[in-house]
Amino acid sequence: MSARILDGRALADTVRAETEEKVSAFQAEWGIQPTLALVRVGDDPASVSYARMIQRTCEQRGLAFRAHTRPADASEDEVVELVRELSADDSIHGIIVQKPMPEGINDALIIEALDPAKDVDGAHPLNAGRLAQAAFVDRPQDVGPYFVPATPLGGLEMLKRYNIPIDGQRAVIVAASNLIGKPLTLLLTRHWATVTLCDLHTRPLAEITREGDIVCSATGVAHLITADMIKPGATVVDFGFARLEGKWVGDVDFEAVKEVAGAITPVPGGTGVMTNEMLMCNVLVAAQRQCRFGAKLASRVVPVQLRTSVAGRVLIGTHG
Amino acid sequence: MSARILDGRALADTVRAETEEKVSAFQAEWGIQPTLALVRVGDDPASVSYARMIQRTCEQRGLAFRAHTRPADASEDEVVELVRELSADDSIHGIIVQKPMPEGINDALIIEALDPAKDVDGAHPLNAGRLAQAAFVDRPQDVGPYFVPATPLGGLEMLKRYNIPIDGQRAVIVAASNLIGKPLTLLLTRHWATVTLCDLHTRPLAEITREGDIVCSATGVAHLITADMIKPGATVVDFGFARLEGKWVGDVDFEAVKEVAGAITPVPGGTGVMTNEMLMCNVLVAAQRQCRFGAKLASRVVPVQLRTSVAGRVLIGTHG
Repeated sequence: MSARILDGRALADTVRAETEEKVSAFQAEWGIQPTLALVRVGDDPASVSYARMIQRTCEQRGLAFRAHTRPADASEDEVVELVRELSADDSIHGIIVQKPMPEGINDALIIEALDPAKDVDGAHPLNAGRLAQAAFVDRPQDVGPYFVPATPLGGLEMLKRYNIPIDGQRAVIVAASNLIGKPLTLLLTRHWATVTLCDLHTRPLAEITREGDIVCSATGVAHLITADMIKPGATVVDFGFARLEGKWVGDVDFEAVKEVAGAITPVPGGTGVMTNEMLMCNVLVAAQRQCRFGAKLASRVVPVQLRTSVAGRVLIGTHG
Repeated sequence: MSARILDGRALADTVRAETEEKVSAFQAEWGIQPTLALVRVGDDPASVSYARMIQRTCEQRGLAFRAHTRPADASEDEVVELVRELSADDSIHGIIVQKPMPEGINDALIIEALDPAKDVDGAHPLNAGRLAQAAFVDRPQDVGPYFVPATPLGGLEMLKRYNIPIDGQRAVIVAASNLIGKPLTLLLTRHWATVTLCDLHTRPLAEITREGDIVCSATGVAHLITADMIKPGATVVDFGFARLEGKWVGDVDFEAVKEVAGAITPVPGGTGVMTNEMLMCNVLVAAQRQCRFGAKLASRVVPVQLRTSVAGRVLIGTHG
């Protein structure tokens, strides 16, 4: 039996249409175009081409995009200053900083110069910490609003929209990165999955991935996940992207694994396209929070009085 | 065969002696007594008795202790103001806020009013986020200094000092709380364990705990963990504390499990006593960071120039 294909492109089209509609409604209400600023130091070709793709996506969704670049020999202070200026600029709602920075610049220092309310890539540790502390989805939330990195958020969205059960299921996540593995662990835990997080020292990996009702892989190692590593009927979510024999492939040996799995995301056309859409959603959410509550308040924990002042509605929500 | 008993009291005595020595050295160098402030709103008896115990421990270790209490009907603004004042007070190095706050006060709002550099209980989401983003222990660190809640930090310290292997081992953690389960997951992941985090929806729990080379339980449910749930030879770390038939017991059915496990922490006399010692360590570390780098800088990410200015030594370390 061949697995159900979790089509990222079809889902991204749906999300895209929703975002475009919400962006229009937002503009009609506020007369403001949600705006994403991108910060790049140096001109690494992959970063340049990624920025171009983000720009195109923004423009198609009705969002404004501004690139702020500095030469590779820019000083740490100069980049911190740029990020602070963008954070203080009320016409900018979201900021994404392309990493890694050139040698001599501390990535963490740059990221912490971001206003967490504009950190639409979920890179700031305050956002990571609020996600880590967020209550289970069906419990009252007692953390401030936060952003989750777009890639794990897109993976979660695929699982939800394709009605893959998460609650009470075992999820196995391969690779403990800050961009995918760790936030995804916290996200799926929050949705009541029992999550196992694997890293480079996990042995034997196959034994552990076979325990998963959901297996998520984000290593960038082509075809690391083979058919014998998957429990029959499991859902396989592939965040990998690598070149193999002249083709783009994922972490998962798709042709073989789809004969075992119950559902599977293809590469390309799976989680990758959803990542872009979720980034756009995050920019819109950032603009909404800032316009409704003021840029200064948008990432703050809301006082009890203010929170409950509009008929008990939580004013600044979280998502993810 | 009966398990090796991981004696928390003996280890706490060792840590205690080390702390006392370091506190003396610190006072000799700086002429300052590391000081812990405790904030309590209302007079819940358990909170009052906990505060008294912390005070006693501080005084025995040579640390100063100050309680700042407010009546149960204090306003949210008043408590925020108190926490801000203590955060700005250079004579206070560590602050612990007793939770939960009375109804009408948002815990998260109070916690985020803390200076993260003084958050010796690791409660602030900036500290949780830096722990979440911290690199594996043998890799260069690229996050700012942080604090880990004392209980999981004490559990890690027990594993390390009793030479229980962590790297490449499977750890199963029962209960996904912000105080223990989630930070412990991130700590053990950072030490290269493959961690499975269980919650109330995990079924069947026994099947999963039996996969663990290390099983940590922090539910507060007396004798939840029975002998059939443990793989022979595994290490069992009990963070529970509950009353059963007139006695204090842990999550683990100690008498039965110790016949199966390879190593086990008793209750009482296990992780509990280590918690207090680790809190004292955190207060000392907070004072060291603040005196060396100034209160304003102590929780900041250090710029590259400053970081490498003293013969490449990282100036503001993390621990945990």
